[in-house]
This record gives sequence, structure tokens and C-alpha cells, in this order.
Amino acid sequence: MAIRLDAQAPGFPTAFATLLGQKREVSEDVDERVRTILADVAARGDAALIELTSRLDRCDVTGRLRITEAELARAEAVCPPDALAALALAKQRIEAYHARQRPTDELFTDDAGVTMGWRWSAIAAVGLYVPGGTASYPSSVLMNALPAKVAGVPRIVMVVPTPDDTLNPLVLAAARLAGVNEIYRVGGAQAVAALAYGTATIAPVAKIVGPGNAYVAAAKRRVFGTVGIDMIAGPSEVLIVADETANPAWLAADLLAQAEHDEAAQCILVTDSPTLADEVERALAHQLATLPRAAIAAASWRDYGAIVIVPHLDDAVPLIDAIAPEHLEIETRDAEVLAARVRNAGAIFLGAHTPEAIGDYVGGPNHVLPTARSARHASGLGVLDFMKRTSILKCSPDSLRALGPAAIALGTAEGLDGHARSVSIRLNL
Amino acid sequence: MAIRLDAQAPGFPTAFATLLGQKREVSEDVDERVRTILADVAARGDAALIELTSRLDRCDVTGRLRITEAELARAEAVCPPDALAALALAKQRIEAYHARQRPTDELFTDDAGVTMGWRWSAIAAVGLYVPGGTASYPSSVLMNALPAKVAGVPRIVMVVPTPDDTLNPLVLAAARLAGVNEIYRVGGAQAVAALAYGTATIAPVAKIVGPGNAYVAAAKRRVFGTVGIDMIAGPSEVLIVADETANPAWLAADLLAQAEHDEAAQCILVTDSPTLADEVERALAHQLATLPRAAIAAASWRDYGAIVIVPHLDDAVPLIDAIAPEHLEIETRDAEVLAARVRNAGAIFLGAHTPEAIGDYVGGPNHVLPTARSARHASGLGVLDFMKRTSILKCSPDSLRALGPAAIALGTAEGLDGHARSVSIRLNL
Repeated sequence: MAIRLDAQAPGFPTAFATLLGQKREVSEDVDERVRTILADVAARGDAALIELTSRLDRCDVTGRLRITEAELARAEAVCPPDALAALALAKQRIEAYHARQRPTDELFTDDAGVTMGWRWSAIAAVGLYVPGGTASYPSSVLMNALPAKVAGVPRIVMVVPTPDDTLNPLVLAAARLAGVNEIYRVGGAQAVAALAYGTATIAPVAKIVGPGNAYVAAAKRRVFGTVGIDMIAGPSEVLIVADETANPAWLAADLLAQAEHDEAAQCILVTDSPTLADEVERALAHQLATLPRAAIAAASWRDYGAIVIVPHLDDAVPLIDAIAPEHLEIETRDAEVLAARVRNAGAIFLGAHTPEAIGDYVGGPNHVLPTARSARHASGLGVLDFMKRTSILKCSPDSLRALGPAAIALGTAEGLDGHARSVSIRLNL
Repeated sequence: MAIRLDAQAPGFPTAFATLLGQKREVSEDVDERVRTILADVAARGDAALIELTSRLDRCDVTGRLRITEAELARAEAVCPPDALAALALAKQRIEAYHARQRPTDELFTDDAGVTMGWRWSAIAAVGLYVPGGTASYPSSVLMNALPAKVAGVPRIVMVVPTPDDTLNPLVLAAARLAGVNEIYRVGGAQAVAALAYGTATIAPVAKIVGPGNAYVAAAKRRVFGTVGIDMIAGPSEVLIVADETANPAWLAADLLAQAEHDEAAQCILVTDSPTLADEVERALAHQLATLPRAAIAAASWRDYGAIVIVPHLDDAVPLIDAIAPEHLEIETRDAEVLAARVRNAGAIFLGAHTPEAIGDYVGGPNHVLPTARSARHASGLGVLDFMKRTSILKCSPDSLRALGPAAIALGTAEGLDGHARSVSIRLNL
């Protein structure tokens, strides 16, 4: 079972530091192979894509790299109607939430007579990586594509590997629903290369988002600069803060919902009630027995699960901020008060009736969130990730005269006389 | 002199593609050495910093890694008063502009009874890399530190190499003015490592910003994930669009102001007037003769400068969007109209009286801008780069009942029964 820590025990700081420092990912060193794949696609384009896909995904994509509209329609036809209806509800709610994230432009003239501000615009083309096989989630397609759509991105390009020529129909249905413009059956580092550099079939994009395996992550890291990338996602996490008012069976279900993702997922319960902790552990063991993905969940809970007992719930706040969890559930008496004191968390789920799974699917906020303590500096995916800001500056002759001398002084002080001169030449200085 | 391209010539698409594809940076492969340095600092902390600084910067920092308040005061005392006054003006204007970038929180309850929104918070600790030697600019200290200050970052840590124990006093004065909290005399990959991993003297930060050489860039790329980083900056660029109403001498001065930065800087003039182009070339040659950094500027203009003649100014727009210049000056009759049609540019400088140098120093907008075509997907530095957003979700029992079935359907469809159960257990389903 999970480790249990007592925040009042003398060894706690060390034990907590160990928990924080835990490496949950085997960082497979695939960088050299990725470098070769990127160079190959850059040099040979489609031919390289076809060869690599044949070799790595055992799938012949000659002449059929792009998935056709007819294939999409056929895929949708075989999806369970309740799942399609759920996707439609999710789409509507995700769009409504993200529409509020649209930024506003600004343009103002200050007392010196300088007009300035900024203008937001959508990125012209975005690539969306979607994993194949078991980690292929239709909900993630919506969560990645819809903010881009809301941002106004005119061209959204999805790539998805089709190992042994198999595809998840619900993933295609989600892509169609979200308004993805092009879909190609290619994955791995070769798909990232195609999106970044372009090939005869796939025009390049300006930014690549979406989760992937070690090859995809290494490829994204390498093409960063040529294109923009989103965060490099790690294994998922939840931290639940609860007091004795919480329902232990519900908490256990929430911990297992996280643990079933991945053996490297991490679930942490922080509570001021040792009794609750015991009850949660018992409920969790009980529920594990009937969970289809019990092996994965049990391994995650055994290897990375933790229960931290704090003397008071107030003491949970610095621990939360240090862990900076991707998901934070607060099931305590004054959940809002506690939430207001937290600085670092990707998403907060408030109260007993907000299991994280609601947020994964149909809540509205994005489920692509910063992992591995990166909520200390990063945000979940949103509309701003698909837009960029251009600053605007306009001086009148008078305002140039007012500000010019200071610019000349600084240009001169920095040894950049050409800078100074570009101002002085206009002022006849 | 610079290359001249005619947009109506048959070979133009190829020539323009070559211009776009130009590599202006020798990408020195320092990755292996950087990896060693990072590992050394991670393992040995301060001892490694002291050794590396002694070896690489020929500076003994034993017991004096941190720059004291007394040293800052002494540095400020030797700065030219006009430069200090100019910095103070710059500070006030940069702060006023960036204060408008502070984002707003949101919290609303929708028709389904779900409460949701987000909350922005400042990053708790930010590292600011400042280059030493000739590329050490006080204006950059303000441009990097002030948005963090406006964001509310409580701890801003600056690192700056002091080769041969020398420092730029105006850089220290700028840091003091901007309210930087700690300054350490260390640079290179070792400084990035110290900020990311922490040492006994330097507590770790959550994000690192600021420009640097190949070692710094490689180190930032490697620690990305452990901490956040800003963009990897490349050589600076300007694209000027002008018609025959523009003053050729002013344009030449602006091109040279950019070219004097770096032999790898790029200056492009796009115009519908071949006459103007000729006049600018003549003025540029004339001004070069008296420019202190003439050798650098001449090399930049010779190797990477370009003049593109377009039949109509309208034809400039797609060229601008493809180049996605860091700086875009528009000196034409209807500058605003043309500016409104541009999608990709880091910053736009409107009209004859707005030389880019004003924006470098005292305009107000940030001068840290996306280079190397990354304005296609990235923005200049701003307040949002020092904050992160936490999403908030709260279901009532009724709204969970309304949304629950869709979440259960999607969890089941994705093979994540534990997700479905965390909802159904609350609904007694």
C-alpha cells in the first residue's frame, strides 16, 4: 500500500523531500534515434514518413496518408450513440468555458502623446498529436482542438498513429466534431517532424500540441524553436485534501480513477483525520478488487501513492504548493477558503460533488494540465496557447521629442550609437 | 551590399524561400559540455559554481557569490546621471504599459448549476539570466524584471557572469531600480543549473528567463520541465515597409540600428518604390562611414540584409507574415491600415516618428520579442509569462446528477472504468 507520512514526525521534512524528488518516469534515452528520424523526414519528406510508418507501425500508408472525409463518416457510424451524445455535450461545455478566455486588445494614448497597446491574433496553423493504441482518448482530442478553434486557428492538423492499420473510431468522431481540418495516419517522431518541417502532403504548422510517448516528447523538444510546442506532459497526478466530513468511499474512487491511468500516476491524500485515512485505505482495497484496470491502479498506489497526516488543514497549504499538483480536490468543510490560499495547482475541484472525472470530460475547463510540479510555473491548456500578441507603438513628432533624449542616453550608454542616431536623426540633434 | 529581390521576377518564390530558410546562427554543439556542467552543479552545488566560475570566468567567487547591497550602491554611484535618469523614465513607462496586461480572474455559474472559472497567480520565484561582457544591457534587465514585478513575483533572482571580475555598473543599477531581490555573480550553464536545481547559496526558482549564449540556451533547453523557460532568443531582426513618402536617411538609420547588434542580425526593407530603395542604400553607405560599430553593421547588411521591391504595398503583407519579423516598422501613407492586415510580427512601430530604438528603451512595450520567425506562434515577454492560471470547478449535487451520465459514458468508452465509478458512486448508480 501507499506510504503514510506524519507531518509532525521528526523525519517528515526528509521524507517529504523524497516524495517531492521522486522520479516517476524512466527517461528512456531516445534522443539519438529521434534526431535521425527528424533529419530523415526533413530530407525525404513523404517517402520517409511512408517508410517509417511501414516499419514502426506495420501500416502501409502509400497514397493514403490523409484520412478522408468518407473514413471519418464511417468511423462515426460505428460509435456508440451515448458516447457521441456525451462528446457533443462535452464540446458545447468546453467551448462555452473557453470562449471566456478570449483576450482583449488594447490601444491607448498616454500623457506623453505616445499611442501604444497590443493586438492578439490566432496562430495560422496548429498541429495536434494524438497517441494511438490504449492511450488514445477522444476527450483529449476535444480538449486540445477546441481551444484552438475558439482562438480562431484557421487550420488544425491532427496526426495519429495507426499501428497495424487500426484506429479508434471515437477519436475520429471527436476530431470531426471539434472541426479538425486535416488528419494524417502517422505518429511518433516522424509525425512531429512532418508537422514542423512539412512534406509534400502535409504543409508545416507553426505550433504543435498534444501528448505522446518518449519519442514524441524528445521530438517536440528538438523542434522547439522551429515551431512552438506546449508543455511536455508527464504521468498524471491528483492530490486530495479532505477532513472527516468527506466520504471515504468517494475519495477512494477518486484516487483509483487517477491511479488507473498509469503505473506512474501519483495519488496523494492529505488529511487531518487518521481515521479518515484508514477508512479510505480500506475502501480503496475493497474497490480495487472489482476494478478492470486493477493491476495498473494497484501498482501506482503501491509505488507512488501517499497519505500525509497533518495536524491542521492549514498545514496542508505549503505541502500543496510544494507538490503543485496537476489536480487538486478539496473535500473539506470550508473548501473555498482553503482553495483561496493555494498558489500552485493546475486545476482545483471543489467539494464532495466534484470528482475529477467530471473535469476530465464534461465540466468545461481544460483537462490538459501541468504535471510533475510544473504548476509552479505553468498553466493548463487554453485559448491563449493558440494566439499570440503583437505590441504596437506609435510616436507623434512631439512625443518623440519628449522621449528621444532618454533613448539617446541609453543607446549611448549601451555602446549602441546606431540606436541613438536613429532617434537623433529625426530630431535634428 | 544587401541582396535585392523583385517580387515580380520569375525566380522570386525560390529566392524568397532561400531568404526565409537562411540559417543565421552557427548552432555550436555544446550540448555534451552543458550536460556535464548541469550534472556537476546538481551534484556539488556551490563548490561546482565556484570552480567553474574560477575556470571559465577567471573570477574567484568564494564567499562572495552574492552581490551585496553595498556593491549595488557603489555601482549606482559611478553611473552617468543622464543614463540613470533615462532608466528611471524607462522604468515608469514600462511599468505603466505592463500594468494593463494584468489578467482578470473569472468565476461563474452556468445554467446547469456548475460553478467554474480560473484564478491567476504569480510564479513564486523567477530567475533572470543577464549576459556579461559586451551584450550586457541595462535596458534588458528592466524589460525582463519589470513584468515579473508587475505580475507580483515575490522573488526575482538575477545571475550575471563577471568575467575577470568585471561588472557593468549600469546593469546593477537597473537591477536595483527594477527591484530584483537577489543577484549572483555566476553565468553560463552553471548559473542556469543553480537556478533550476538550487545550491546551498542560491535557492531554486520555478522559471528562468533572459537571453544568453549557446551554453545558456542549451542549458535552458535541458532544464525545461524542471523549471519553465522563456523563448530561446536568436539574432535580432527588423523588417521595414516603406513607400515613397518615407525619409530614406531615417530608414537607413533604423536599418543600421538593427544591424549594429550582431553580424547575424537581419534587416529587410520592403517597398514599392525602387527609387526609395536606391536612396536608402546610398544613405546607409554614407551613415556607415561614421558608425562606431560599422564593421558589425556592414557584415550584417552584406550577409543578411535584403531589399524586396513589391508592385503594390498590399503585396508586402504575405511576405511579412511569412517572415514574421521580430520588429516591423511601417512607414507608409496608411500605416494603420497596413498594420491591421498583418498577422505575424513581434512588435509593430507605426509611422515615421517611431524608430524601433524608442521601443528598445522607453516606449513602454517589452523589447524581448520572438525572433527567427517565431512570431508565427509566440508573443513578446509580458506579465502573463510570470503568472499561471489555476482552473476551478465545483458541481452541486444536482449538476453532478445532470452531467454525470455523460462523464460515465465517456469514461466507459475510454476503458477507464475507475473514472466512471468515481461519478457513479456519488449518484448511487
